[in-house]
Amino acid sequence: MTVQEICQRAAAVAPEIGQLRSELKDAALHAMADALESRAAYLAEANAEDVERARSEQATNTIIDRLTLTEGRISSMAQGLRAVADQPDPVGELVTGWRQPNGLVIERVRVPLGVVAVIYEARPNVTADVAALCLKSGNACVLRGSSIALSSNRAIVDVLRGAIQSKGVPEDALQLVPDADRSSAIGLMQAKGLIDLLVPRGGAALIRSIEENATVPYIIDGDGNCHVYVDGSADPAMATSIVLNAKTQRPSVCNAAESLVVHEEIADKWLPGVLDELAAKGVEVRGDERVRQLWPDALEATEEDWRTEYLDLKIAVKVVDSLDAAIGHVNTYGTSNAEAIVTQDISAARRFASEVDSGSVFVNCSTRFSDGGEFGFGAEIGISTQKLHARGPMGLRELTTTKFVVWGDGQTRE
Amino acid sequence: MTVQEICQRAAAVAPEIGQLRSELKDAALHAMADALESRAAYLAEANAEDVERARSEQATNTIIDRLTLTEGRISSMAQGLRAVADQPDPVGELVTGWRQPNGLVIERVRVPLGVVAVIYEARPNVTADVAALCLKSGNACVLRGSSIALSSNRAIVDVLRGAIQSKGVPEDALQLVPDADRSSAIGLMQAKGLIDLLVPRGGAALIRSIEENATVPYIIDGDGNCHVYVDGSADPAMATSIVLNAKTQRPSVCNAAESLVVHEEIADKWLPGVLDELAAKGVEVRGDERVRQLWPDALEATEEDWRTEYLDLKIAVKVVDSLDAAIGHVNTYGTSNAEAIVTQDISAARRFASEVDSGSVFVNCSTRFSDGGEFGFGAEIGISTQKLHARGPMGLRELTTTKFVVWGDGQTRE
Repeated sequence: MTVQEICQRAAAVAPEIGQLRSELKDAALHAMADALESRAAYLAEANAEDVERARSEQATNTIIDRLTLTEGRISSMAQGLRAVADQPDPVGELVTGWRQPNGLVIERVRVPLGVVAVIYEARPNVTADVAALCLKSGNACVLRGSSIALSSNRAIVDVLRGAIQSKGVPEDALQLVPDADRSSAIGLMQAKGLIDLLVPRGGAALIRSIEENATVPYIIDGDGNCHVYVDGSADPAMATSIVLNAKTQRPSVCNAAESLVVHEEIADKWLPGVLDELAAKGVEVRGDERVRQLWPDALEATEEDWRTEYLDLKIAVKVVDSLDAAIGHVNTYGTSNAEAIVTQDISAARRFASEVDSGSVFVNCSTRFSDGGEFGFGAEIGISTQKLHARGPMGLRELTTTKFVVWGDGQTRE
Repeated sequence: MTVQEICQRAAAVAPEIGQLRSELKDAALHAMADALESRAAYLAEANAEDVERARSEQATNTIIDRLTLTEGRISSMAQGLRAVADQPDPVGELVTGWRQPNGLVIERVRVPLGVVAVIYEARPNVTADVAALCLKSGNACVLRGSSIALSSNRAIVDVLRGAIQSKGVPEDALQLVPDADRSSAIGLMQAKGLIDLLVPRGGAALIRSIEENATVPYIIDGDGNCHVYVDGSADPAMATSIVLNAKTQRPSVCNAAESLVVHEEIADKWLPGVLDELAAKGVEVRGDERVRQLWPDALEATEEDWRTEYLDLKIAVKVVDSLDAAIGHVNTYGTSNAEAIVTQDISAARRFASEVDSGSVFVNCSTRFSDGGEFGFGAEIGISTQKLHARGPMGLRELTTTKFVVWGDGQTRE
């Protein structure tokens, strides 16, 4: 089947999927979870093929670790599906409603988008997560994972399609693009009229390709050049704990902090200590002039450092003389993913929350909470760094649109 | 100034506009309204230049009528601004909020987009409407009207900028592109990083140009191939009144009906009468085989007729044998703008409302209500025929996005 035909199959069943009752969707999600567990041996076998191929292609240990499906990970996937079943159904939500002076009753009702396509390069568990979120939100889905996980993804989708079919949900609701080459990605990007939303989960190259090629609607799940700003009034121990967490707990992800901005009032007494602790955890520190005076081991930070999403154990550090300067720096270099302030000053907190232009602003907590799971969305389809339709972590709601339903008793317009 | 420089000026003041309090924005809107009225003579003079040029260029009477600013129309523009001031401020709305198990309090807050640009070809009053909606929603705006109204638009923007300046709102919040040529439209479409939303209000050529050229985010305000479906159970008098209103009250607009779909149960006794009435109002009827048997004056409807947005006194009529066939026809040929059902059968109403894929579905009322003003939005920025971000009539809310603000007391991620 061509990518076009795959999308046509999804589009053909989308209206039926959009009308399914919550109880049926939840039963299908539980059947999907049960099937993953009961067919763990089949999944492990398919996964072994991917792992073997990856090894023969000299993949790094990190990649092989991410790729490998253990029994524990299969069980986690199943639990993820059950968590999505536990979420409230967004479809049918009466978002708002009112009565007009002429007696018309206007309802704004949440409805599915139709067909959601996701291009991803990550671990095989994304396949199950995305399938679950799309089904729960009443959408058919088209999945296009990475070639390195192709056998695993085929097996997972095979099991999941069987499971939904067993509950009477058409298996065509769940499509996997069988070729993970560049042309299949372009095919999805240009399946205009068949795909209602494309979510590209990947790096800068994928986003550039989307911007150049896509004719279908898409949402950019972009970079995270995230900052922690430590205000003059910050609790020093809290500031240290948040900075260490944001930078080092998992440096390779988009909501990890890349820059630390410190108010001069607290810099002298607090900054050297936290930089010692960061260095002790293997973090390379790059600082401006004032940072290097306080902590001479810091390398010199260049303009390039303020702009860079390291995704690594590196941090760029700047001392500022005001909240305005901090907000200005964050708005200049941030990528609208996650920005944090540590402060005890309510005015500073309110101004930072209001004036920083970002999908999520964190007051006295780590940027690492910019995540659908941490927000309570069950699983996440991605983090939007754009402003239209969705912004910040995306859950089930972001896989829907709304429709106005207007009830009258014969009204016409004068 | 180049289009790029104009957009830069708007972007430079956008953060300040986004932070304005409602009371200041409303005072500025009232000052704008007052200024339009007190400077009516100045506006009329500028408008006379446009009208004279239009006449010398052999514009039609319809176009000249739309272009002409009378004292009454200037007063209506002013009233439109006051109506926008009366709307609730969308900025700062707490859309939703909850507490996570770890104590984090997550708020989803409504915030402005930043810079909104609108390309339009309509009457000069759109200039004032769009300026008002953008200011109220906390956005800077860049307006690009049609060349035929350029002197009028310059005068209106001149008056409005003076009025907001008098209240302490920076006049750069309101920008008019001084050249209404094709290159200025392309310039706006490609002002990436400066424009947060572009709304093209115009015909198919403009939409095609947007799809081909735009690198900024946009919302399609598209066609309206709208249907009225008259169910077997419909009240015949109500059905007649709604069909006549939807087709003939103002046939040139996007929410006018273009097709009539009739259940066979009611066709024999009801259809000939309504077609007589339509014909008496000058409507040309094109029908399928069954329609032409019942009403032989009908021309033969072709596949092309089902697809055509006439925007004229023409209607395509089809008889169907089931609700399913009606929904299928509407979903095949409709353009997701406005679709109506006339029925006394609650099951048919619920199924039509649920299964028709459209921005607005009207039960027992006219498609002509698909309009921001009729929905109570004060004025409208357009009607979205897409699914992402906004769908159906767009008001102030659709000129905003949201931001998550997460309040903690030292939480870090495990």
